[in-house]
Amino acid sequence: MITEVTAQQLDTESFINEKIKEIKDTVGNNTAINALSGGVDSSTVTMLGHRVLGNQLRTVFIENGLMREGEPEQVVDFFRELGVTVEIVDAREEFFAALKGITDPEEKREAITQTFYKKVFGRIVKESGAKYLLQGTILTDVDETVAGIKRQHNVFEQLGIDPKDTFGYNIIEPLIQLRKDGVRRVGKALGLPAELFERIPFPGPALSARVIGEVTPERIEIVRKATVIVEQMLKDTDAFQYMAILHEDRVTGMREGRRDFGQQIEVRCWDSIDARTATPTRLSFDKLEKLADEIINKVPGVVSVTYNIATKPPSTLEAI
Amino acid sequence: MITEVTAQQLDTESFINEKIKEIKDTVGNNTAINALSGGVDSSTVTMLGHRVLGNQLRTVFIENGLMREGEPEQVVDFFRELGVTVEIVDAREEFFAALKGITDPEEKREAITQTFYKKVFGRIVKESGAKYLLQGTILTDVDETVAGIKRQHNVFEQLGIDPKDTFGYNIIEPLIQLRKDGVRRVGKALGLPAELFERIPFPGPALSARVIGEVTPERIEIVRKATVIVEQMLKDTDAFQYMAILHEDRVTGMREGRRDFGQQIEVRCWDSIDARTATPTRLSFDKLEKLADEIINKVPGVVSVTYNIATKPPSTLEAI
Repeated sequence: MITEVTAQQLDTESFINEKIKEIKDTVGNNTAINALSGGVDSSTVTMLGHRVLGNQLRTVFIENGLMREGEPEQVVDFFRELGVTVEIVDAREEFFAALKGITDPEEKREAITQTFYKKVFGRIVKESGAKYLLQGTILTDVDETVAGIKRQHNVFEQLGIDPKDTFGYNIIEPLIQLRKDGVRRVGKALGLPAELFERIPFPGPALSARVIGEVTPERIEIVRKATVIVEQMLKDTDAFQYMAILHEDRVTGMREGRRDFGQQIEVRCWDSIDARTATPTRLSFDKLEKLADEIINKVPGVVSVTYNIATKPPSTLEAI
Repeated sequence: MITEVTAQQLDTESFINEKIKEIKDTVGNNTAINALSGGVDSSTVTMLGHRVLGNQLRTVFIENGLMREGEPEQVVDFFRELGVTVEIVDAREEFFAALKGITDPEEKREAITQTFYKKVFGRIVKESGAKYLLQGTILTDVDETVAGIKRQHNVFEQLGIDPKDTFGYNIIEPLIQLRKDGVRRVGKALGLPAELFERIPFPGPALSARVIGEVTPERIEIVRKATVIVEQMLKDTDAFQYMAILHEDRVTGMREGRRDFGQQIEVRCWDSIDARTATPTRLSFDKLEKLADEIINKVPGVVSVTYNIATKPPSTLEAI
């Protein structure tokens, strides 16, 4: 049983000190390793880990081919400025090979999890000799896994799977009592600048969670281009999260007076405090139409754009 | 070459007199037949035909199983009050049999066209002995067919297919020079009351045009239920057209704290004068959220609702 620490209850200084002690006591003189995605959770845990462990912690960024435009380079540059060295591991071919032909969302998630842990990260961990894996799991991940919503690739322990048997290492999850708002406060207290710790949430399976149907390099490139536009145009909102989703369904459109049976992008933009409930952000129609025009004009093959108007629940933030 | 008569140019009285003369000259003492869908175009042509031909015109309503809630009965009741007898022909099994297993929109359209003309209506026409078929084709149908947008089932002549050879009868299309706004003026002048001639446009393939993927009685029932809600809630807008579309793509949702991999309904609501260009109606978010809630609560299996924010072009009004 995990005891929740709400953002209201959270005393960041004592929380950080407590976690520093726990990590130090656990890792001792051994080495630890962690994978950084560039999201709030993994960035915060990277800062926390480096504060405790310094060079005893090795941080890798696995380039799975599913990240946003320019993201691997941005993340590495960003942490370099904070004094943290991050290694990029190019594993794109392995991920796309594992995803080939898969359309079921659970199978996709499983393919990414297996490729990430067993194949790529497992290999790196074994080669590194590190015994400890630091992970940025938060309470919402656990809730959703228990409810069966998603197979979060970072909650084996909560599912009763012993990661030591399965993958050969131990998991340390210092943020597991927090939700997103708490993590942001801890990240801020650890010195992460606003532009990083205020980043909107981004899912573990990255852009593959934004593609309905088969994940191919070509389809990822379409949703990546749409994501650039959505993030650019909606960054001035106070929204909790916003995203572009590539549908598999095709819809009719016209180009130069001719039929064009094309693709549809769904935009979601959520107002939310902690991701447990959410409502669609009330964007102006000037903005919505401009967003649709930009996507249609700049993303090849897209003829139609929708905006999600459901609330969570029963919707979820991500589509798959 | 068809000469367009714009709504601005249109003198309804002389237009009607001219068409009455043309129909009378063409049909003579023979009998004619027409299929009424209840839409503006076929309703207007039914009134025009009955004014000229009286009992020489037989009007049938083919129940294809793809119509909106209660529509066959409403249409028949409506015309009964106007003194026009309409026969309902139950052809639901034939249509669903023809649509079984088909997911390609063009093949669906073709299956409906073939079932409508060759199988059901062709049989009725042959049994009736009528030599003339009256149709409500309008200029927009012809434009879109020539551009290859849709295979309108009512424009064989414009495609260079001789309907006499193909289906055994002649087509009379008195509204072919008009667009939707002109047809409404003619319908009004013919005595159709506002509630009918001001009806929003509804496609020939009916609700099958609102289902992405296979058309089954179950999937039609889902989109039919969503259509009731959309039409009820948006009837007080000044929108040109509004619709619910059932997607084939599945998205994740939650119900009672558990995962529910469910269906998505896309709502489209268009501001337009003549269907050639259109923009999404700027509905309030109060209305959009209420619409989404109603659909999710009342239509089994639906966990997500989107609103289309693209413009035509490059979008089209209908999705398939």
